[in-house]
Amino acid sequence: TGPPLETLRDKCLAQGHNGSKWGLNLGLLVHRRVFDLILSYLIDSLTVGSSSGISSATPTEEMNGSGNLMDFLDEPFPDVGTYEDFHTIDWLREKSRDTDRHRKITSKSKESIWEFIKSLLDAWSGWVVMLLIGLLSGTLAGVIDLAVDWMTDLKEGICLSALWYSHEQCCWTSNETTFDDRDKCPEWLKWAELMTGHSEGAGAYLLNYFLYILWALFFSFLAVSLVRVFAPYACGSGIPEIKTILSGFIIRGYLGKWTLLIKTVTLVLAVSSGLSLGKEGPLVHVACCCGNLFCSLFSKYSKNEGKRREVLSAAAAAGVSVAFGAPIGGVLFSLEEVSYYFPLKTLWRSFFAALVAAFTLRSINPFGNNRLVLFYVEYHTPWYMAELVPFILLGVFGGLWGTLFIRANIAWCRRRKTTQLGKYPVLEVIVVTGITAILAYPNPYTRRSTSELISELFNDCGALESSQLCDYYNNPNMTRPVDDIPDRPAGPGVYTALWQLALALIFKIVITIFTFGMKIPSGLFIPSMAVGAIAGRIVGIAVEQMAYHHHDWIIFKNWCRPGADCVTPGLYAMVGAAACLGGVTRMTVSLVVIMFELTGGLEYIVPLMAAAVTSKWVADAFGKEGIYEAHIQLNGYPYLDQDEFTHRTLATDVMRPRRSEPPLAVLTQDSTTVEDVETLIKDTDYNGFPVVVSRESERLIGFVQRRDLTLAIKNARQKQDGVVSNSVVYFTEDAPQLAPNNPQPLKLRRILNLSPFTVTDHTPMETVVDIFRKLGLRQCLVTRSGRLLGIITKKDVLRHMAQMMNQDPESIMFN
Amino acid sequence: TGPPLETLRDKCLAQGHNGSKWGLNLGLLVHRRVFDLILSYLIDSLTVGSSSGISSATPTEEMNGSGNLMDFLDEPFPDVGTYEDFHTIDWLREKSRDTDRHRKITSKSKESIWEFIKSLLDAWSGWVVMLLIGLLSGTLAGVIDLAVDWMTDLKEGICLSALWYSHEQCCWTSNETTFDDRDKCPEWLKWAELMTGHSEGAGAYLLNYFLYILWALFFSFLAVSLVRVFAPYACGSGIPEIKTILSGFIIRGYLGKWTLLIKTVTLVLAVSSGLSLGKEGPLVHVACCCGNLFCSLFSKYSKNEGKRREVLSAAAAAGVSVAFGAPIGGVLFSLEEVSYYFPLKTLWRSFFAALVAAFTLRSINPFGNNRLVLFYVEYHTPWYMAELVPFILLGVFGGLWGTLFIRANIAWCRRRKTTQLGKYPVLEVIVVTGITAILAYPNPYTRRSTSELISELFNDCGALESSQLCDYYNNPNMTRPVDDIPDRPAGPGVYTALWQLALALIFKIVITIFTFGMKIPSGLFIPSMAVGAIAGRIVGIAVEQMAYHHHDWIIFKNWCRPGADCVTPGLYAMVGAAACLGGVTRMTVSLVVIMFELTGGLEYIVPLMAAAVTSKWVADAFGKEGIYEAHIQLNGYPYLDQDEFTHRTLATDVMRPRRSEPPLAVLTQDSTTVEDVETLIKDTDYNGFPVVVSRESERLIGFVQRRDLTLAIKNARQKQDGVVSNSVVYFTEDAPQLAPNNPQPLKLRRILNLSPFTVTDHTPMETVVDIFRKLGLRQCLVTRSGRLLGIITKKDVLRHMAQMMNQDPESIMFN
Repeated sequence: TGPPLETLRDKCLAQGHNGSKWGLNLGLLVHRRVFDLILSYLIDSLTVGSSSGISSATPTEEMNGSGNLMDFLDEPFPDVGTYEDFHTIDWLREKSRDTDRHRKITSKSKESIWEFIKSLLDAWSGWVVMLLIGLLSGTLAGVIDLAVDWMTDLKEGICLSALWYSHEQCCWTSNETTFDDRDKCPEWLKWAELMTGHSEGAGAYLLNYFLYILWALFFSFLAVSLVRVFAPYACGSGIPEIKTILSGFIIRGYLGKWTLLIKTVTLVLAVSSGLSLGKEGPLVHVACCCGNLFCSLFSKYSKNEGKRREVLSAAAAAGVSVAFGAPIGGVLFSLEEVSYYFPLKTLWRSFFAALVAAFTLRSINPFGNNRLVLFYVEYHTPWYMAELVPFILLGVFGGLWGTLFIRANIAWCRRRKTTQLGKYPVLEVIVVTGITAILAYPNPYTRRSTSELISELFNDCGALESSQLCDYYNNPNMTRPVDDIPDRPAGPGVYTALWQLALALIFKIVITIFTFGMKIPSGLFIPSMAVGAIAGRIVGIAVEQMAYHHHDWIIFKNWCRPGADCVTPGLYAMVGAAACLGGVTRMTVSLVVIMFELTGGLEYIVPLMAAAVTSKWVADAFGKEGIYEAHIQLNGYPYLDQDEFTHRTLATDVMRPRRSEPPLAVLTQDSTTVEDVETLIKDTDYNGFPVVVSRESERLIGFVQRRDLTLAIKNARQKQDGVVSNSVVYFTEDAPQLAPNNPQPLKLRRILNLSPFTVTDHTPMETVVDIFRKLGLRQCLVTRSGRLLGIITKKDVLRHMAQMMNQDPESIMFN
Repeated sequence: TGPPLETLRDKCLAQGHNGSKWGLNLGLLVHRRVFDLILSYLIDSLTVGSSSGISSATPTEEMNGSGNLMDFLDEPFPDVGTYEDFHTIDWLREKSRDTDRHRKITSKSKESIWEFIKSLLDAWSGWVVMLLIGLLSGTLAGVIDLAVDWMTDLKEGICLSALWYSHEQCCWTSNETTFDDRDKCPEWLKWAELMTGHSEGAGAYLLNYFLYILWALFFSFLAVSLVRVFAPYACGSGIPEIKTILSGFIIRGYLGKWTLLIKTVTLVLAVSSGLSLGKEGPLVHVACCCGNLFCSLFSKYSKNEGKRREVLSAAAAAGVSVAFGAPIGGVLFSLEEVSYYFPLKTLWRSFFAALVAAFTLRSINPFGNNRLVLFYVEYHTPWYMAELVPFILLGVFGGLWGTLFIRANIAWCRRRKTTQLGKYPVLEVIVVTGITAILAYPNPYTRRSTSELISELFNDCGALESSQLCDYYNNPNMTRPVDDIPDRPAGPGVYTALWQLALALIFKIVITIFTFGMKIPSGLFIPSMAVGAIAGRIVGIAVEQMAYHHHDWIIFKNWCRPGADCVTPGLYAMVGAAACLGGVTRMTVSLVVIMFELTGGLEYIVPLMAAAVTSKWVADAFGKEGIYEAHIQLNGYPYLDQDEFTHRTLATDVMRPRRSEPPLAVLTQDSTTVEDVETLIKDTDYNGFPVVVSRESERLIGFVQRRDLTLAIKNARQKQDGVVSNSVVYFTEDAPQLAPNNPQPLKLRRILNLSPFTVTDHTPMETVVDIFRKLGLRQCLVTRSGRLLGIITKKDVLRHMAQMMNQDPESIMFN
């Protein structure tokens, strides 16, 4: 039953565990040997602690301890009720097991006070898990923010008064500087100044440039090495995989402790290295790892894959909540984008977890502004109906960018998978980091961290603003309050900024395509928003200057008097960011709600919504799938998406066996011997077998899982006297009395599922797809007039859907 | 197949259509005859226009025109594909029909440009419907707000300068008055002043009192009469019925044009009459009527009950959006509370409709403050951890109130249903209005409209506040900005207000129980919030005064220094309102989001959430169901709620026929005659019949709908030569060649559903319930080893669930 693992392996793992092999690709590093020694020491010390580098998702598996990092194919012998790795869970069965458990606890709770208290604890455990997830993911997000802040600044210089201070924190404590030149406080030294004593001049600039590149390379090399050696699953954004896991797939270790630790550390490194990536997607992965961690505290969640997924949905909400400081947006993101099965109970708990996480983050206060949200903005002017035209144009831009990005990125990732390129992941990261650093440093808008850039682009120009973008000609005679500054002519700084922004835009667009999908943690939200924000700000300034210089034009006449504050370029940046993010991810409500939480007012919801709708429509016209679905498909994960299936095929067209194939492997209820069963198990790799009354009548009575059958026969052979190879296996309620010379029969009715799901051969596939999706089935039997005809598995459904959409059906890899 | 209609009838309709009969119960009215004449004139003129008083939901039915207002039992002969009144729809079938339609349009669109444009129009029709719903429901909400404002004030006096101005609008235009006594502008005259010239004194007070009562009685009498004569379905809040309809039930006319018109008009009257009811629930009903209205413009929606429900879900969101000015809260309310099937596409469209509605309402600007939200508040102080204790206590109060209200209201409604009381609905409304008006007038907090009361209770006391609630002793030496006033000792006005509020609280609690469920439009949100806001404000003032007088107490020491603004009583009112609303409706996320949108900041989300969680837990401890579910159950609507079914029963325990009953009525595929079928149809009232290979083998081949069978036979008898009573009905693919003397066979395979849903007899009922809920089935066949055993209908499932929960299973009334 070993699934073809090439895809997943290719994606993250290839050669990764071989400490000496990856080193060969990195000839440029001098300290290779020393580093190698340290790493192998680390590997040794850590792999003794936990049984394998990829920490297992369940305690059961952990105890089995395969010991080898790569041993996916060496399947442990799971207990009844657990699933094998890379298999699909059966939602109905999980639900029914939970109901059983619940029933047991309820009936027990009447027996004694202790049992009653235990039942209360059980009922409350969900809330406890949510609280813990909120606390831990909020804390981790805070720590990540602080570390990123410090390490990003470390590329440029260091704070002498306190080494662990970032540039901003360093200059806060300085009381000599005014607000205006707070960036140049004496405590903060650039590297060139520290080393040579000169802070100006070409030499200093080049030294700073060189050190910036060196630090970036060091961070990214460390990140990719850690990922490849310790936790290959820590790479990427994680959202495609989490979507797949939430839809009912098992990927052991994907949400393990080890992944949690390494992803947190490497996320900091990757973001600090200045690559064009964000921390939002990885934070969702980190929060889900937290959720999985706390699941193991309660058997209610650790032993039930269905219940576990409810917790993970809530954890995903907490992840987005801390990424943006937008708890409601986080819950909606989880509902709209990530989750598969989202009952109302989960909605409420997700909200709780998201709130706790947001408030934990706020009490850590990493941005130092007591604000919950990542980009806090406050605009002072309303928007006008005429502005909807540029907003909609930004929406079109966002849709086009989304289409371009998805196509180019998928093409590049496919090339990485299929060519030699994929064999040098470390080198790839090093090269991309190098190029990024070399091109980013000269441009002030790409040199700084992307979130700072977005923050500046979103902000309105107040009177005290020192940014180059706010270099307007002021009318010295006018005294107006800070929050009502009229439109002014742009100064030279603004025009310089425009050129730099245009270059930054092209740079971001190109480099992001190559960055997303590398073997380091990489989110897509921030780069997408940056692209949109740059484009939006450029458009905003253009509109503002047009309105200033031509307020007699008919389009401006009605709403823009001279001396009034008509156009807010920051709002354009925000609208552009929403449009681009929407084009890439195809989020809708959650996107608008996140943006609404960032601005904190319903005032700007119409512009945002206009851009988001346009962007989605434009992008959908070129292809329905967002970046996450595209990556799911690229990797061949068994994900049944929510799109309607509209083809006119029937169950009989999809079921196996097909006409040319041998008949369906079935068991009979009272005429199969143990040996027959063993032969069947050996010869086939099906996950289960239908049981019929007799081969002639083909009347279905139930379905038996391969695993249960194997276990039961093994058990009987060992423990039950008289069960030999030609014992007859009975699935009937009572085995008949046999002559004494016949071997002891084996009764297996208790492992028989008496309520297998059936459809008739005439059922339209759209109904079958709907049933699989809504009930979360693994397989479904096909009958005609009560006779068993065949079987449809989830894999068959996915293959058929891929075929119908003219895609390669063989891309569906897993069971 | 006529369902027992007593319940629904009892609820709204009893005797209502008999114009002369209802009058008899109202001996106290003098103008009876005149009124009677006008009404019967109106009835005549209006029933000529539309075919029946209860406007039909589909054009088909409208053309059939039953003509009689009450003719529910006279079932029209619906076309194939439509459903009978009071029947459950089959979601899977609707979905598959829509896919067929979609497929047809897609394949046609390639034929010509015109067809392509038509397919585009079809794709866009959903958005057009949303836009129209948003526009109409926003406009209606605005008109309702304006009319209520004017008519509420009409009870007390009139604006001489412009008769159509409300008190506030009247005094706005007056430029003689200062901000302080804006309530006493000369243009506004109380009735006594207008009639007698005296505005003060006992005589004037009594005259005003009397006219207040008279207006109230007049408004409520007009409301109840209009409801009873023209649109019996316009009564109540409508949310329980809309929930039922959205879950897949047909109630023709419930969302008709006539209901829309009458509900809008009577809602204004009911709210203006001063009864303890709100307009939020009815606004949801009104918005859903708009949705239904616009569905009829597009065959995509009017001909598909499943698609129609997607539109209605979005309309419900628009309804809440305009009720509170909270679009996101509205969407979540629809998702959490009202809707049954809510795909992501609907989420996005709902959001659009909700936004359009909110902005339409804002451009009408009925509150005159350019604010979107109903209760706009702005607090200036943060909350402190220690305050969580009173907030949680308010949560407990809210939970207890919810429990008390639901139990008492249901008991009273049951009494109304089962005793003579229900026969005098007009009298009941008159009496309750009378009592309300008599008790409400003397207390200034109950005399005004409930939303004004809530608004005042929510507001923080600023420096300029003239309300009695803000009568604090001010320190004359202190000059502080308006938004930072320290805690002060309460003056006598506050203590008076406290007493009046306590009386108002008791009054509201008692009278709301009797008001909700009367035969007029009545929402529950506003009265619930009022109860909570009063309780909260009382607690808030108590805490504030304690903190002021005892700031050395250990609980206040840490956060309340003398001279600081520690406690915001308005926040307590808001928390209390959330708690009480949550206790009654059991809303969770949507409640918090609505409150969050009202305050416009994440700052106060923790207090709100603490109260909402506590309130839900406390209320759930006494009974799981909210007021809407309780009313659904009281009326016996076939609503399958989302609760888990945890009993250990099997399909075999629920299916029919039971052991003692006659065998299942089945058809055979090739041995039943037309006469047999006709006898079966006549003798039974089942909605459909399974078709088996033969009675001996009992192998199922399909399911045929009663209605389709009747239509097909009727059709064949009329049009097909040679089909006589002993023609054999064939459901097989090919009818065998018969000897020429045999009558012509009737081939009916095309009406046979070849993919009926089956489960085995061993399937646990929890799985069966899950399947019914998730797939929206009407019935499911039960098999064992491929043999047909019995059938389970939705009604059987509901009965069984009621039985298991020790409720009366006979309360499930409809098919």
